[in-house]
Amino acid sequence: MNQKHPKESEVVMTEIVLPNDTNALGNLRGGKILHWMDIASAISCGKHAQASVVTVSVDNVSFQNPIKLGDVVTIKAKVTRVFKTSMECFIDVWAENLPSQTRYKCNEAFYTFVALDSNARPRQVPALLPETDEEKKAFAGALRRRELRLVLAGRMKPEDAGEIKSLFSKGQF
Amino acid sequence: MNQKHPKESEVVMTEIVLPNDTNALGNLRGGKILHWMDIASAISCGKHAQASVVTVSVDNVSFQNPIKLGDVVTIKAKVTRVFKTSMECFIDVWAENLPSQTRYKCNEAFYTFVALDSNARPRQVPALLPETDEEKKAFAGALRRRELRLVLAGRMKPEDAGEIKSLFSKGQF
Amino acid sequence: MNQKHPKESEVVMTEIVLPNDTNALGNLRGGKILHWMDIASAISCGKHAQASVVTVSVDNVSFQNPIKLGDVVTIKAKVTRVFKTSMECFIDVWAENLPSQTRYKCNEAFYTFVALDSNARPRQVPALLPETDEEKKAFAGALRRRELRLVLAGRMKPEDAGEIKSLFSKGQF
Amino acid sequence: MNQKHPKESEVVMTEIVLPNDTNALGNLRGGKILHWMDIASAISCGKHAQASVVTVSVDNVSFQNPIKLGDVVTIKAKVTRVFKTSMECFIDVWAENLPSQTRYKCNEAFYTFVALDSNARPRQVPALLPETDEEKKAFAGALRRRELRLVLAGRMKPEDAGEIKSLFSKGQF
Amino acid sequence: MNQKHPKESEVVMTEIVLPNDTNALGNLRGGKILHWMDIASAISCGKHAQASVVTVSVDNVSFQNPIKLGDVVTIKAKVTRVFKTSMECFIDVWAENLPSQTRYKCNEAFYTFVALDSNARPRQVPALLPETDEEKKAFAGALRRRELRLVLAGRMKPEDAGEIKSLFSKGQF
Amino acid sequence: MNQKHPKESEVVMTEIVLPNDTNALGNLRGGKILHWMDIASAISCGKHAQASVVTVSVDNVSFQNPIKLGDVVTIKAKVTRVFKTSMECFIDVWAENLPSQTRYKCNEAFYTFVALDSNARPRQVPALLPETDEEKKAFAGALRRRELRLVLAGRMKPEDAGEIKSLFSKGQF
Repeated sequence: MNQKHPKESEVVMTEIVLPNDTNALGNLRGGKILHWMDIASAISCGKHAQASVVTVSVDNVSFQNPIKLGDVVTIKAKVTRVFKTSMECFIDVWAENLPSQTRYKCNEAFYTFVALDSNARPRQVPALLPETDEEKKAFAGALRRRELRLVLAGRMKPEDAGEIKSLFSKGQF
Repeated sequence: MNQKHPKESEVVMTEIVLPNDTNALGNLRGGKILHWMDIASAISCGKHAQASVVTVSVDNVSFQNPIKLGDVVTIKAKVTRVFKTSMECFIDVWAENLPSQTRYKCNEAFYTFVALDSNARPRQVPALLPETDEEKKAFAGALRRRELRLVLAGRMKPEDAGEIKSLFSKGQF
Repeated sequence: MNQKHPKESEVVMTEIVLPNDTNALGNLRGGKILHWMDIASAISCGKHAQASVVTVSVDNVSFQNPIKLGDVVTIKAKVTRVFKTSMECFIDVWAENLPSQTRYKCNEAFYTFVALDSNARPRQVPALLPETDEEKKAFAGALRRRELRLVLAGRMKPEDAGEIKSLFSKGQF
Repeated sequence: MNQKHPKESEVVMTEIVLPNDTNALGNLRGGKILHWMDIASAISCGKHAQASVVTVSVDNVSFQNPIKLGDVVTIKAKVTRVFKTSMECFIDVWAENLPSQTRYKCNEAFYTFVALDSNARPRQVPALLPETDEEKKAFAGALRRRELRLVLAGRMKPEDAGEIKSLFSKGQF
Repeated sequence: MNQKHPKESEVVMTEIVLPNDTNALGNLRGGKILHWMDIASAISCGKHAQASVVTVSVDNVSFQNPIKLGDVVTIKAKVTRVFKTSMECFIDVWAENLPSQTRYKCNEAFYTFVALDSNARPRQVPALLPETDEEKKAFAGALRRRELRLVLAGRMKPEDAGEIKSLFSKGQF
Repeated sequence: MNQKHPKESEVVMTEIVLPNDTNALGNLRGGKILHWMDIASAISCGKHAQASVVTVSVDNVSFQNPIKLGDVVTIKAKVTRVFKTSMECFIDVWAENLPSQTRYKCNEAFYTFVALDSNARPRQVPALLPETDEEKKAFAGALRRRELRLVLAGRMKPEDAGEIKSLFSKGQF
């Protein structure tokens, strides 16, 4: 099974905030952003895996700025690390108000997917070779994020989460 | 400002999994569930706050079982704790296959919202008085979850996250 | 074939009135409410029948209050009576303006469904055992409503509609 | 205020049955048909009234034949009678399977609308002059249907519903 | 294979301009009109061919007047000429503002479809017999439009496009 | 008013073909592609103009390959030339089947937009400075395409279309 680079799975999605996706204040609902992020990252992981993929987890997401009705949302997704049958994908969301050409960061997140074969059973995916410094940093941090996911899902004991514990003692997360 | 009970903000939402919301394997996309959960919890927090609310964060979500095309999804949301202008909401998602009447747990999560006044500025919300044991437990755990949110968003130093640190040393999360 | 209670088929659906579903005055279109009522009652009858169901008729519906853009609509559905392969379902629709927490009745109706087997042929459904006074009253009234449906569909002669005739003579409907 | 003919308010709507609008058996949901009928008849009444209109009631609807996925649905709507500020509209629904060119009747119904002025208050609409025999028959029957609506909505006593009572005694509805 | 008249494939579609289909100025997006025109003309060609059809080309479309939010759009489609397995369809789009009853022309266009058999291979369609003067004129002009399509798609050399060249020399298009 | 480069208005849109957008053969409807192309190019022109834009015309579009259900569609849009208040935008559409990673060209087209000020009147847009050879070629060809648009819309006499006539005589289009 061949190896792939993160840039081969890069996906760019562009959407406009429509009335039906906003709340009473004219802001895009957070849930709609999470939905778009899921589609963009599923396509990205599908490109990497050359297979159907299903979302298995979404890491904590903070919404930094409200996105207004009519603004253009750009979602970029890229695979950051692979664990045999699962892939972690980084998603970065920016919005832009066209008339004023103001670009602003909305949020970012990590979604995890599993690749499935035609019988809906997990199947192995190609290895990932990070190239840029940013890709290498995201690759390294994936271990820590994975520990946290397993602890939060009750599938790893906190005392076994060595990566997280050392970070807490070192004072940086 | 009066106090309210969690049951006053309870919301039940029922949806059917439609073709457009599924992936190639006929499973509901994770992003669509996150979207529905956002709407249910926004209504719940809106009931508690009697105000417009915006999503400020979503905690880590693990998807336990794929939801199939045609199945009925039931989403329950209830406010768990209030922090001046923000509210934490618990959402519990179950699905059911009607012909076989098989019910299965899909996932659960905590979403956080802020209440806004008509000028889109944060406004205070009523206090929350948990009643049942389950509500009291969720109320207590909200502090720990809030610390983790702040640490993950880079707004609290890990060494100041006293609740989380003690849990890691005690070996339960 | 076992018996079931109405509460086992109770369904609660919550929706928000979105811009695309309103008319020029910002009111939810009546047709959209009828659509939501159909889905809620189809799920309710599907739960009772443990089978696929199809709508066979909708009784007269009066819209009592317009529902405004952004309001939250709560639809409750419950099976009221069973006629071998068909089920009558009662649907009750309320709306709520969250900021003012004003709840108002919108309308109510009876939809009738038939349960189908995998060859799309009508199949028998479990008997229904009403428990509360309200359920017993709805159960009794189902005969009269059924007569009216048959008369209006041209499948029963008015003079054979004994239930309706006696009501007309008694002066209460 | 001028008079109008039914043909001036005639509306034809054509739709295709899409996957999201069908149930597990591949049939169009009854609620979706009711929704389309509402839009077609609202346009028809809007043409007659030259005003915004709101649905006030829907008469009993029986679904005669299931409509299949991919079939083409043709909905025709036409105003049948006017009562000062309200209009009764007849809607006729046919479907067609294009490859086999089989046309089949689905259902028909009467919807009632009220015209509103810009302050959302009922306003008078132009009189209606039926021309064809069919239009005259629908015009005449509107009195009887209106009585039934009022009785079913609890706004007329059964004993005052002279049109209906005479029909029951005459044995034709 | 029998012959058919254009009127047998006539389709009327009526739509309302909804908020999600408009841009920041409250005008219907051109792309949505093109989408509706595609559906109307696909149904028209499906009626003529009694087969599944796929869009193979769309001729130049000019948008003459913006269509406003809430206005009613009427789309008429009719087959104009047949070329063995392909059909040219004329589509005419008008809009109407109901309160003011102002009707205005939006645009018109020619779409071309190919009929496919169940193996997705092109199949022959019935001949077309134009009846009215307008139908005969559209039938005649189809040759010129077809040449232009082939030239623009790079499938015919400009010097072989005899119909177009003579028009250019004659000074009328 | 400053000048801009084509790359500043480049837009990438990624979509998945969903069941509701396909015809009976499981192919994406041509009209839906036209719709997506309109949104992508409207965003591109909006970026260039920093203003609201409306579609004024769509050039002839040929669909080269059917796009299948579940495939991923990538739409790229870029402004090619500016004419005072209007902009011509090139749109290139490719699709990809993820499991087999087959990429295939679907179609390309030119859409034209006009920039509007807040009173919905045409307003001037920044000049465009093509940089790459491809951009310069598209810039040059825009004159010829504009002539054809005007001739087809009946707003220029064929004999005045100098660019087109010379191409016809030279034998290349």
